[in-house]
Amino acid sequence: MTELLRVLGIDPGLAATGFGVVDGDGRAATVVTLGAIRTRAKDARAQRLAQISEFIGALIEEHRPQELAIEQQFVAHNVRSAFAIGEVRSAAMVAAATRGVDVFEYAPTAVKEAVTGYGAAPKEQVRHMVMVHLGLSEEPSPLDASDALAIALTRLAELPAEAALARTARVRGGAASADE
Amino acid sequence: MTELLRVLGIDPGLAATGFGVVDGDGRAATVVTLGAIRTRAKDARAQRLAQISEFIGALIEEHRPQELAIEQQFVAHNVRSAFAIGEVRSAAMVAAATRGVDVFEYAPTAVKEAVTGYGAAPKEQVRHMVMVHLGLSEEPSPLDASDALAIALTRLAELPAEAALARTARVRGGAASADE
Repeated sequence: MTELLRVLGIDPGLAATGFGVVDGDGRAATVVTLGAIRTRAKDARAQRLAQISEFIGALIEEHRPQELAIEQQFVAHNVRSAFAIGEVRSAAMVAAATRGVDVFEYAPTAVKEAVTGYGAAPKEQVRHMVMVHLGLSEEPSPLDASDALAIALTRLAELPAEAALARTARVRGGAASADE
Repeated sequence: MTELLRVLGIDPGLAATGFGVVDGDGRAATVVTLGAIRTRAKDARAQRLAQISEFIGALIEEHRPQELAIEQQFVAHNVRSAFAIGEVRSAAMVAAATRGVDVFEYAPTAVKEAVTGYGAAPKEQVRHMVMVHLGLSEEPSPLDASDALAIALTRLAELPAEAALARTARVRGGAASADE
């Protein structure tokens, strides 16, 4: 009965941005495609951001995800690296929003919680559970792709609760709506 | 003899991004257009970034600047606000680079130095000198636009030195080239 939702997960990085497209209904999920977008350190920052933006745009046009999921900006120890991640985040969000794809942002702890049930899980455990959830026989490569799949799974994990809320609203005779 | 260069200056901000398109040859400069792109706090971050990116894309397609000039990311006291500025910076750089427009980045002190001759000049002096350089009878409004014009003027101020270098290279019988 439940329709499949197709989510593009993005793990942003200037040198390598992981991506993973996942279909799921909140119970089972399967990988559509995964990989990493690499840019060269010798190219100008604007060129690298444009390459990432165009690649994500092409991914969206090919695979038609309904939503994009990405980690929220966090305050890193290395501020320069945090700015670079923020710029890639922006390039990805713009590529989605300009194509009508809804963007969902999650804190790193929310991703760990959703995938492993434990908000402080080590990275290795998150990667292992990504394999389990997606029925993969080996760890996705590159690891950036695994992290992107974890973020897509975080979005899909919200679906059962959303469906339950929608059912409650129907039972109570109201339309499910977030507007006033 | 010198050809005019058309530069789009951008002063990035999530609520208001100033822009100014300037034609110049390094001696005289004139305003083509200026203004500010405003987004609403109630809209999602991705939507706001997409609106800014699309507006800048439309500006580029209408006015055909050869170059975009923008301030380098700086480390602000307010890290959250610095991240927002970095995301807008990225949206602007991607809008330019995906349309073949070269991007030039300047430190805030370089902008002050270029426009007023003094790298620690107060904001008011920078805005006054923008008026003087562009032959405007009143201060550009909104102020975000004035700051964007200052960044465009910073790029144009480099042209005399670049032209001198190119002449030297010709006199010495070599082609001016940055490649090996």
